[in-house]
Amino acid sequence: MEASADLRAVLIIGDGMGGRPVPELGGKTTLEAAITPSMDWVARAGACGLMNPIAPGIRAGSDTSHLAILGYDPYQYYTGRGPYECAGIDMEVRGGDVAFRCNFATVDGNLNVIDRRAGRIEHGTDQLAAALNAMEIEGVACFVKESVAHRAGLILRGEGLGHRVTDVDPHGEGPIHECQALDPDSEKTARVVNEFVRRSYEILSRHQVNKAREQQGQHPANIMLPRGVGVAPHLTPFDQKSNLKSAMVVETGLIRGIGKYAGMNVMDVEGLTGGYDTNAQAFSKAILEAASTHSYVLANVKAPDLGGHDQDPTKKVEAIELVDVIVGDVLEGLDLEKALLVVTADHATPITVGDHSGDAVPIAFCGRGATTDNVAYFGERTCAAGHMGHIRGLDMVNIITNLLAIQEKYGA
Amino acid sequence: MEASADLRAVLIIGDGMGGRPVPELGGKTTLEAAITPSMDWVARAGACGLMNPIAPGIRAGSDTSHLAILGYDPYQYYTGRGPYECAGIDMEVRGGDVAFRCNFATVDGNLNVIDRRAGRIEHGTDQLAAALNAMEIEGVACFVKESVAHRAGLILRGEGLGHRVTDVDPHGEGPIHECQALDPDSEKTARVVNEFVRRSYEILSRHQVNKAREQQGQHPANIMLPRGVGVAPHLTPFDQKSNLKSAMVVETGLIRGIGKYAGMNVMDVEGLTGGYDTNAQAFSKAILEAASTHSYVLANVKAPDLGGHDQDPTKKVEAIELVDVIVGDVLEGLDLEKALLVVTADHATPITVGDHSGDAVPIAFCGRGATTDNVAYFGERTCAAGHMGHIRGLDMVNIITNLLAIQEKYGA
Repeated sequence: MEASADLRAVLIIGDGMGGRPVPELGGKTTLEAAITPSMDWVARAGACGLMNPIAPGIRAGSDTSHLAILGYDPYQYYTGRGPYECAGIDMEVRGGDVAFRCNFATVDGNLNVIDRRAGRIEHGTDQLAAALNAMEIEGVACFVKESVAHRAGLILRGEGLGHRVTDVDPHGEGPIHECQALDPDSEKTARVVNEFVRRSYEILSRHQVNKAREQQGQHPANIMLPRGVGVAPHLTPFDQKSNLKSAMVVETGLIRGIGKYAGMNVMDVEGLTGGYDTNAQAFSKAILEAASTHSYVLANVKAPDLGGHDQDPTKKVEAIELVDVIVGDVLEGLDLEKALLVVTADHATPITVGDHSGDAVPIAFCGRGATTDNVAYFGERTCAAGHMGHIRGLDMVNIITNLLAIQEKYGA
Repeated sequence: MEASADLRAVLIIGDGMGGRPVPELGGKTTLEAAITPSMDWVARAGACGLMNPIAPGIRAGSDTSHLAILGYDPYQYYTGRGPYECAGIDMEVRGGDVAFRCNFATVDGNLNVIDRRAGRIEHGTDQLAAALNAMEIEGVACFVKESVAHRAGLILRGEGLGHRVTDVDPHGEGPIHECQALDPDSEKTARVVNEFVRRSYEILSRHQVNKAREQQGQHPANIMLPRGVGVAPHLTPFDQKSNLKSAMVVETGLIRGIGKYAGMNVMDVEGLTGGYDTNAQAFSKAILEAASTHSYVLANVKAPDLGGHDQDPTKKVEAIELVDVIVGDVLEGLDLEKALLVVTADHATPITVGDHSGDAVPIAFCGRGATTDNVAYFGERTCAAGHMGHIRGLDMVNIITNLLAIQEKYGA
């Protein structure tokens, strides 16, 4: 079946937007307490349900959840955050590479961490990364690239590299950790990482960028601390497997990385800060622009998740209301005869937990192909009675291509 | 646990009976718009839910859906329609056979298809099939049998036959397609098919049935065009795996084939046309007769699906009301103390799509073992709130044998 050129799906994902009852809100969830006329309209005009991003009770990360929502089983394609972080900063990641997130950090002469963010260094990390990039250790090529502030990516490419190794980053002050292999296949990887870290200290502590910093009384970025290892999976590009032309309008490097890894068109949009102060108008404008030239647009608004991590119900309610403004603006610009709009969260970040939880999150589908049901408000409890029932993240692509009627029939 | 001799389950499946809101029906689905007092009674007296025949969003065929409902995972047991079509016309199909559906067609001397149904030939295909049957090519036995009108089955039996090959049937006029292997293991199959097609032309174009047709100005059935390849699976017979004695009262060759393949007692019933004009009284009489001697009866009424494919809401509503008549008559004849009645669809065929969709379909269980809930009408939206929740086709046998309390306990 051929996709009609003007059919499209738009997903607006409030990061961590799901929650649990909050005592300070009279037992309402933040989503229930927020004033969300547009999301309620979507619920009323469409079909609702609850989504378990991975499976009931599994505490999803944003990365594993988005992989699942894009139709990639994270149990098969996710071993750690490294490969997606590296893809997110436009490093070339190949299937089989072993990849890490890194910090530029400050250590003393005994390799004790003094500042694991090297004074939140802002400038010169491109030169530092270049000084380390493409070194070879035991026949393994080590690629390094700077990211935002003190962050960077490290890719190991070569034969015989397992990925079951521990972090070098001690995640605080004190001695750096030795990278240890957790299985025999990963011993070479551990040796290469330890040698890479040793050499990074040798090279960086002599680097002129750091000499200049020290002269100015700043912490030198004199070592790299890898963490978050993962082996890079072989992913079939999203558009190829889904018969869709896809774009992402997202804020965080992690989700950008997943989009890039899946071969999606990841938009650069000014004004998206990834914070409470993100620009709702810039968001909706970018979503509608992307939807004018793509048949699948995934948007992720980070702010609600921050409110959950901060355990700040007021901030989270405000962030959810910001998502609602975006949903309203997008609704204004979409022709729901042709477009399917989906509103959901990638996971819950309950105020009472202060971190991600594995609770099911509400979801609503309205527009092209979607049935209506009797749900009148978008929330954790109301959506439970909806027509879509409980679905999983991995069902999402099938549900969307079904509603748009662009999926091949299975059988006769 | 021994099955009590007088417990039984009757499933009445309205083919394609699920749907989506239809603008011409004021936003009701055809099922909601139809007057269905008997199905509503079943919903009210029993437990309702929604069923995803395969999985949420997957656009099931009738074949893959019925396999799932019978407890055979189609992803394991279905590679194509051929084996089930051949079983449906009583060919002996063995696990490992590579089987096709075929048309007798008319080609010119350059093997261009002039009429892919050979003038919808009615007579003589038994002789044509016999002239081709049991030929051997590269040590592979080729079995041919006629079906209804221009249709036939082809089975290849021998060593080294993969099933990943393309159709010879061009599905229209023009040159016949060469059968091509899609993987190295299927190269022999492609060669055998191409040689079979070549020989079919050689033999059929000289056959006296065709000479007679040509003298009468009719298109000769001078070639066989295979399509719909599948490898025949090894299925454990339904009765053996389910502890049930099963029968089918169905109309289409495809579902008959699945029943025969699963070793079910597939009834021959006069008056079941597979069309809008099928005989409801003959249907209910046959179902009740089957239920008097079997503990599991699956009935499939084809008409609602036709209404969906025809995108004719009036016809589909009438067809659904015909299903309701059958349900009502069956209810009259069943003792619900002993019998479980299940009403559902094998997939949705929404008016707005004109083909199968992957939407969940309503289901209601009443009688023996079934709980009641608060659902008062049988429909897509009402059943979403029912006690059974969202189930999958593959759950059906377990749910039924559970309600009848004839399933072995799993554990202690």
